[in-house]
Amino acid sequence: MATEPSFQVRKLQLSDKGKGFIELMRQLSVGDPISDEDFVQRFQELSSHGDDDLICVIEDERQSKIIATGCVFVEKKLLRNCGKVGHIEDVVVDSSARLGMKIVEFLADHARYRGCYKVILDCSSENKAFYERCGFREKEIQMVQYFV
Amino acid sequence: MATEPSFQVRKLQLSDKGKGFIELMRQLSVGDPISDEDFVQRFQELSSHGDDDLICVIEDERQSKIIATGCVFVEKKLLRNCGKVGHIEDVVVDSSARLGMKIVEFLADHARYRGCYKVILDCSSENKAFYERCGFREKEIQMVQYFV
Repeated sequence: MATEPSFQVRKLQLSDKGKGFIELMRQLSVGDPISDEDFVQRFQELSSHGDDDLICVIEDERQSKIIATGCVFVEKKLLRNCGKVGHIEDVVVDSSARLGMKIVEFLADHARYRGCYKVILDCSSENKAFYERCGFREKEIQMVQYFV
Repeated sequence: MATEPSFQVRKLQLSDKGKGFIELMRQLSVGDPISDEDFVQRFQELSSHGDDDLICVIEDERQSKIIATGCVFVEKKLLRNCGKVGHIEDVVVDSSARLGMKIVEFLADHARYRGCYKVILDCSSENKAFYERCGFREKEIQMVQYFV
């Protein structure tokens, strides 16, 4: 009998583009698919920030398919005695909430390890209960101004 | 008769520390005052990001006093065909809402000029109407997890 795989969270790799990473991300947003050239350029740009900019994924290795992702970046402030804040962005999971929680905990742990005093994210009202189960609580109102 | 000064928005300079910038920032947050050494180090670190990390101020030149500040940083995504998002943070104004609007419009213009497709910020319910007057609208819920 096959055992349930224990999915691991790891950093995004360039080769993940061919494993459905882009298709997964497109569940979140509009726009054309990203070109290989643009993907490599942005990947390298983000990598140059070191651990202050992290994109993580979970791969289903049986299918060589990326099934969850999320990212966190570290904002460096003058406030709070030069405090740092982690910003979680672009969490998307193909299947179960269990994987979503794994991604969010990984990102929050990363922010804590990088010395952040808090980690924040913005979510829809439908996802609020999920983030509460991940240890978050509601604080403020996200406001937006679109240019395009 | 003295004319009303036309306050200009400009980038933060190192010398602003001695002009009440820290005291103004402390209206926003808790914590000890920042040391000169830490201030210089963080200022240089943020400056090394170029125009992707901008702190602006308004100085009342009659008193050599910083009376308003705010910052914006540019997040680079893989989403939205490598889109960019401006994040406005740490807006604080000593006196009038007119200066607050001047700061917010300066930061939003900067994000637009840097190629962002949107600019976002988080605010309390008390400040929501102010940001609506600045051209923002409510979108999502900010969630937080504190580590300290």
